[in-house]
Amino acid sequence: MIKPLISLAALACAFPLQAQEAPKAPVTPNDVVAAAPANDWVRIPAEDLLVMDLAPDMNGKPRRVVIQLMPAPFSQGWVENIKTLARAHWWDGLSIYRSVDNWVVQWGDGEEEDADRTRPAKPLPEGLNVVPESEYVVSFLADEADQAGHLGLIDSYAEAVGLVRGLPVAQSGDAWWPTHCYASVGVARNLSPDTGTGAELYAVIGHAPRQLDRNIAVVGRVIEGIQHLSVLPRGTGAYGVYETEAEHTPIAQVRLASELQATASGSEATGTQGLPQPVFEYLDTSSESFARYAEVSANRNDDFYKAPAGGIDICNLKVPIRRVPTE
Amino acid sequence: MIKPLISLAALACAFPLQAQEAPKAPVTPNDVVAAAPANDWVRIPAEDLLVMDLAPDMNGKPRRVVIQLMPAPFSQGWVENIKTLARAHWWDGLSIYRSVDNWVVQWGDGEEEDADRTRPAKPLPEGLNVVPESEYVVSFLADEADQAGHLGLIDSYAEAVGLVRGLPVAQSGDAWWPTHCYASVGVARNLSPDTGTGAELYAVIGHAPRQLDRNIAVVGRVIEGIQHLSVLPRGTGAYGVYETEAEHTPIAQVRLASELQATASGSEATGTQGLPQPVFEYLDTSSESFARYAEVSANRNDDFYKAPAGGIDICNLKVPIRRVPTE
Repeated sequence: MIKPLISLAALACAFPLQAQEAPKAPVTPNDVVAAAPANDWVRIPAEDLLVMDLAPDMNGKPRRVVIQLMPAPFSQGWVENIKTLARAHWWDGLSIYRSVDNWVVQWGDGEEEDADRTRPAKPLPEGLNVVPESEYVVSFLADEADQAGHLGLIDSYAEAVGLVRGLPVAQSGDAWWPTHCYASVGVARNLSPDTGTGAELYAVIGHAPRQLDRNIAVVGRVIEGIQHLSVLPRGTGAYGVYETEAEHTPIAQVRLASELQATASGSEATGTQGLPQPVFEYLDTSSESFARYAEVSANRNDDFYKAPAGGIDICNLKVPIRRVPTE
Repeated sequence: MIKPLISLAALACAFPLQAQEAPKAPVTPNDVVAAAPANDWVRIPAEDLLVMDLAPDMNGKPRRVVIQLMPAPFSQGWVENIKTLARAHWWDGLSIYRSVDNWVVQWGDGEEEDADRTRPAKPLPEGLNVVPESEYVVSFLADEADQAGHLGLIDSYAEAVGLVRGLPVAQSGDAWWPTHCYASVGVARNLSPDTGTGAELYAVIGHAPRQLDRNIAVVGRVIEGIQHLSVLPRGTGAYGVYETEAEHTPIAQVRLASELQATASGSEATGTQGLPQPVFEYLDTSSESFARYAEVSANRNDDFYKAPAGGIDICNLKVPIRRVPTE
């Protein structure tokens, strides 16, 4: 997933040089991923994929953002709410209303209790959980303890960090929590003790804001289409909220992938623009392949690198995710 | 510089609540910065500011990007080259030709030795240094040693990290080097042992790519206007290079601020769009104010936060920088 940073000439130069000299043949993270056996890949359940179709861009191109929701036991009260909201088609017709550089892009209704609102807040569906702050963390996971620690990563914000069930988590004492990294999706909220419903969501578009860990619910991550969010113009109002309605990016629809599957022939009825249900899988973070991937990622010695780092932080150790071709 | 992440209602709610209850009055990082005495601020020399004016955006608004160049002793061979290139007006009429999500935006000529080039490479000015790889690091700085270590930060990529002369640096053994953080500016290069001239530059627009430390020269950071780079459409060609000339963002001009000053009345002649020379200062990273700022940043307990992080990483500890009003 990491592209070497080179000027345009480098790629052209690399192969002639290697042809003349003894090949160095270093192992890259991509090599490790390519060599991973099929059973090291884990399919993400369709009910854990949130598919957000924005209005087409100014050139008429579709903008699809796919979010993997957190697996149990993390943040499940909010994840349930998000599934309820998706099934109610609650986000359809709402918008992206906030964009702050090196911080977040945020979407939903954006009108709740706002003193300057120009229309009433959109009613929420019934049955949403009111999640207590205690659920920002979960208790010690005996079965996962070795997994999280086995990579030997060090961290500024927790006693330990690692990958559990495909996602980055942190741990101090008996508490475990999902971390904020680039492309993480979280639940916007009001002041404590409010924890948000999941109706107003944000995606991280900058350096990992780890200070938000344990302060806001992380409910997933964008696994495809983050660039449709990260390039949006930054808002110039308070907190980066857009000052005019014209600056908003409309949300055509948000669906669970499982719902798209169930209504495959009815895609026009739900406005899916005819795009197929996406299927993804991630490299099992408890596999030997992943351990090797982590080691190679932390010690790059391929042609572009001169000084291997000798370490890596949890948010730079990106879990390999790939799209599974569908018919 | 950190904005709390809230829904639109939070700000409106916060103050009524405080009026009714005993005020919590927690100290925020911004409070510390606002209270810093005037002599804790250090002016950035005009000859260390690179001012890049892009073509106006589609709404006709100016796009100015201001880069602070690295102070001695870091990366000075490349910094000298960049000043030579700026004085030769070398970047004028060139463009931004590459944009990769969560990675970098890159500019310059972009045609050097490219097999598919449609025009000859632009000749470089005479007198550029050929900088050896050994200059990616500098030797132990006795006078600065205490400064870098005194914040007690921990790091995944080095024995120690800290702030020296206003910029984030890392250290292992006798070697010190500037770190890659969000908005850092570096020198694109070909394969080792090439180190680049400084003609092709990039800015980081994602999570800190610290694995590039000691592998590419960091020559500064964007201190204003990073959003003009981070929102550019991502390139769809190899390595995120734009596939068509139409996708490039033209560079109107690049000047040292000291040069703008020298030609203040001649701004039209050099195409500066009439914008004044910018003046900036940063919070002295060896000051008591900065130490307090770091402590408060690592332990947020203001209204929005429930769980102080208890730590912070070097790239989240953003050095406060402010614009000095000019006549």
